[in-house]
Amino acid sequence: MKQASHSPDLTRLSRHIPRTPSIGSTTVTDEDHVHLSFGFAAPELFPLATLEQAAGEAIRTHGREALQYSGAPGPDDIVKWIEQRAHHNGLDVDSAHVLVTYGATQGLSLAAQLLLEPEDEVWTEAPTFFSALQAFRLSGAVIRAFPLEADGLNVELLEQALQEARATERPLPKLLYTMPTYHNPGGVTLSVAKRHRLIELAREYHFYVLEDDAYGELNFTGQPWPTLYSLAPERVIYLNTFSKIIAPGLRLGWMIAHPELIQRLRILMLGGSTGVFTQEIVAALLQNIDMNEHLERLRTHYRQQRDVMAAAIDRHLGDAVRYVLPEGGFFLWISFREVIDTTELQQRAFTYGVSIVDGRSFYPQRDVGHQLRLCFSYCNSEQIEKGIARLARAYTDYVAEQEAVQLNTLEYHNRV
Amino acid sequence: MKQASHSPDLTRLSRHIPRTPSIGSTTVTDEDHVHLSFGFAAPELFPLATLEQAAGEAIRTHGREALQYSGAPGPDDIVKWIEQRAHHNGLDVDSAHVLVTYGATQGLSLAAQLLLEPEDEVWTEAPTFFSALQAFRLSGAVIRAFPLEADGLNVELLEQALQEARATERPLPKLLYTMPTYHNPGGVTLSVAKRHRLIELAREYHFYVLEDDAYGELNFTGQPWPTLYSLAPERVIYLNTFSKIIAPGLRLGWMIAHPELIQRLRILMLGGSTGVFTQEIVAALLQNIDMNEHLERLRTHYRQQRDVMAAAIDRHLGDAVRYVLPEGGFFLWISFREVIDTTELQQRAFTYGVSIVDGRSFYPQRDVGHQLRLCFSYCNSEQIEKGIARLARAYTDYVAEQEAVQLNTLEYHNRV
Repeated sequence: MKQASHSPDLTRLSRHIPRTPSIGSTTVTDEDHVHLSFGFAAPELFPLATLEQAAGEAIRTHGREALQYSGAPGPDDIVKWIEQRAHHNGLDVDSAHVLVTYGATQGLSLAAQLLLEPEDEVWTEAPTFFSALQAFRLSGAVIRAFPLEADGLNVELLEQALQEARATERPLPKLLYTMPTYHNPGGVTLSVAKRHRLIELAREYHFYVLEDDAYGELNFTGQPWPTLYSLAPERVIYLNTFSKIIAPGLRLGWMIAHPELIQRLRILMLGGSTGVFTQEIVAALLQNIDMNEHLERLRTHYRQQRDVMAAAIDRHLGDAVRYVLPEGGFFLWISFREVIDTTELQQRAFTYGVSIVDGRSFYPQRDVGHQLRLCFSYCNSEQIEKGIARLARAYTDYVAEQEAVQLNTLEYHNRV
Repeated sequence: MKQASHSPDLTRLSRHIPRTPSIGSTTVTDEDHVHLSFGFAAPELFPLATLEQAAGEAIRTHGREALQYSGAPGPDDIVKWIEQRAHHNGLDVDSAHVLVTYGATQGLSLAAQLLLEPEDEVWTEAPTFFSALQAFRLSGAVIRAFPLEADGLNVELLEQALQEARATERPLPKLLYTMPTYHNPGGVTLSVAKRHRLIELAREYHFYVLEDDAYGELNFTGQPWPTLYSLAPERVIYLNTFSKIIAPGLRLGWMIAHPELIQRLRILMLGGSTGVFTQEIVAALLQNIDMNEHLERLRTHYRQQRDVMAAAIDRHLGDAVRYVLPEGGFFLWISFREVIDTTELQQRAFTYGVSIVDGRSFYPQRDVGHQLRLCFSYCNSEQIEKGIARLARAYTDYVAEQEAVQLNTLEYHNRV
């Protein structure tokens, strides 16, 4: 009965573990390669000097406590900062509503664990953030997705589906995941009217809403958007992160939810608070930085990069694509004609020296394949221009090849 | 149909979320209070100066990459360090066997998620680490516990239970969780013969072993212990942490397992690598520190603290308790006579100015209540002496009160 001693018994793993990551990664060492795939912050805007000062301060002033499990004043100071920022953005919360997490990504995992059991339904947007899909899959949940429009989630289709499910006694969702503001990857924003309707539906059909507001502060127009949390604090679990406004490598984010939920989320973290050493440093940084000024710098920069990318797309791809100009965030989502296969286009573009993300990665069933996500936040203007030009050449050559194949096939059929 | 707008719908949470933390926490501001409860490292041994230097170096040299999602060379350097240290400790691994985690605590969560589904059986030691119990409960697993002896887990009872389960077609465990070396809370170490037997059983009954080696480096005698992983790499998931050898506030640990398992554990982390900024700093620290010398300093210090505590117990509590002198780690586990209720004793001790952890917290059913965990790593010698003296006074007064109650009851019965 003994097993071979060199290989683990994979039959005993939990059934809900996918075998592949949600998105592939490639290592490119060619300096000239353009990474329009990376959803990364602009590294030249990281407040490095302030951070170095903050790290020194934190270690000198609070080192012994900051390195212990429970930390020094930092974790409390961060919660206070989050409270104040939340008030500034129209959310009515106190410290009992806040949980600091390892980025918004841990927030996704925790929310999934809090609510979902195998076979529970989670409804999302399509396209949607791939890490969210992965978190829901890991819970064994059933994912159902509803299309995005230029003004966000198609709430009408959602409502029809809810009505149908109730009428036919099919499962209703336990959770709806949405990124209402500056969507990743869609770039679109949910209208105010739809926000209100969505919340009415959540109340009527008793589902929770997981609101991912990772990009909410990166607003290019100045138009404020009410968070879903502010509309229904009892129905919404809200996620945010320092990744886009300070730096992703810190891996610090936060959840805002009803204290009863926060208390249980803390239990899910097994009593371990999120890296207190990092929190101490970030707390010192937050004291030394003028956040409004810093955010204005980020917004101005990212808006310029968006404009550079949009102009390059118009110039190089023109009528070949459609897109909605994003009013904030990191991403521009382009749609080709439906006959274009972006999995093939992505591969060809890669060999032409530009990485992009195939839109399939953002669909639960990977069944929509004529869209791409482009990121304008990480590359500089020159790289963006170069990357889009390469994508356009890849597209032109791909289409020419497809047409040649069709001609050949036609010729073949004519001959036969 | 509308719900009240101020309270969340708790009926929709996953059924496996406990309502209470695995262990209570108290805030004490009295400077004179002695915390023999905290399983904390000695803060005076944190390498603060080296850490400050490392933080500055990391930010100056690799800041932009270190603050991005994927990080600079730090994460790879840490994996190399872990590989080398593993070789030094007799584990045959390369980088594909290693996953850096947020402390050993995240390792517990990830292992539970990887393997366990609701109703699966996890077998543990009793007593055992409370965060492990909580991680298993969150997976909906059924926990069964087997007693610790002076030389670790009672493997004979385990074997009987396995045989019985097989014979009667009752569920066999999918996972056995153990801390074989310098047990938390038990302080004991699994004998070499029992290690071999345990591994034979794991192979025969097809269960995985989750080996928690958090205290393995804090060896007071110089006697080496073979890890379970080194005996059966295909059956063991191994956990370790920088918390005890550098500092817990960093929240950095690691898992070692077969590459097939590591690959799936990475998927469970949703592609997010553990805080790369912290990793970059710790990588710089590891380059600047002589780890063997640092570990010798820790071992000498903790051995002395253990001796101070043992002497204080012998002097103040004498025959009232039994304990096994730990040969490493942080903890001394004492047993009173079975009539003593440590929940009551703990409360009384608290009012006398000393915190300890009631042994019940380490039993899955909280059904053994005459034991306590004392931690000798965090307090200095003077505090340890003072704390044990207070515990002894609390014990004496508690016993006197119990006897008085019994006398009164007796008197009452005699009168009736």
